Amino acid sequence: MSYPLFIKMALDSWYSKIRDTNKLLEKISDDQLAQEVAPGRNRGTYLLGHLLAVNDKMLTLLNLGERIYPELDDIYLDNPDRTKAEKNTAAELRQKWHEINAILADHFDKLSPEEWLQKHMAVSTEDFEKEPHRNRLNVLLNRTNHLSYHQGQLAFLKP
Amino acid sequence: MSYPLFIKMALDSWYSKIRDTNKLLEKISDDQLAQEVAPGRNRGTYLLGHLLAVNDKMLTLLNLGERIYPELDDIYLDNPDRTKAEKNTAAELRQKWHEINAILADHFDKLSPEEWLQKHMAVSTEDFEKEPHRNRLNVLLNRTNHLSYHQGQLAFLKP
Repeated sequence: MSYPLFIKMALDSWYSKIRDTNKLLEKISDDQLAQEVAPGRNRGTYLLGHLLAVNDKMLTLLNLGERIYPELDDIYLDNPDRTKAEKNTAAELRQKWHEINAILADHFDKLSPEEWLQKHMAVSTEDFEKEPHRNRLNVLLNRTNHLSYHQGQLAFLKP
Repeated sequence: MSYPLFIKMALDSWYSKIRDTNKLLEKISDDQLAQEVAPGRNRGTYLLGHLLAVNDKMLTLLNLGERIYPELDDIYLDNPDRTKAEKNTAAELRQKWHEINAILADHFDKLSPEEWLQKHMAVSTEDFEKEPHRNRLNVLLNRTNHLSYHQGQLAFLKP
């Protein structure tokens, strides 16, 4: 699809951060990923699970379909690190991370420019009429920043 | 100025991260800012000087005017932390950070939507014809991600 300039810019920015994060993850072993990124801070596995859950949640927030891994929220979104029993190995988290990003990319490829500018699911129709910037594309911009934020922290696990 | 939707979204995203970073900096004392954000990693003062130099550099990259603090590059951009003698206290870095952001905001307020979509200074006219996404607004998106990345690291200094 040939996108209008600004949709291309937002998507380029998203995919660029996904690529950067993947490159970083390749340099970190599973054992390293299980370490705290800084003393007393979240472990790498928690941050990866957190990013994975946030991306999975974009499926419903952007009204693209059902979530794949809603069970991740309890461990990686709604509770702090090390308070809930983990059900995924580092390798499983990596695999799911790539899987959810591929699913998102498939959906993104099919969205028309008009659909990118439609409201997301966390804003009411009334509010959206007054605040048309609360659209799907804005979620993508915010999630790109969120990914950058935690990528900066994961970088400390790099040997 | 009433901006087209996407320019408003990109500017909102930028100012939101600047505000978040300022809120974070208020919670960190000058002494804390002088600490490494994680063992063996950059100190908070280096990261703040780095973000400050990057923002200052946006003046020339976006063709908005002369730089205010080009002397920061040698310490905070071109060399690793603790290799060059620092010339600014934490308090001075904070003051310059707010100053440069106010100067950028003044310039941003005056840019028309068409001007936001003009090429930045690091791309040639020929390349820009083929790659029109390499415009001023794209620099703003990238710098917002860059700020998010280091904000995630500075957050570790919060007591």
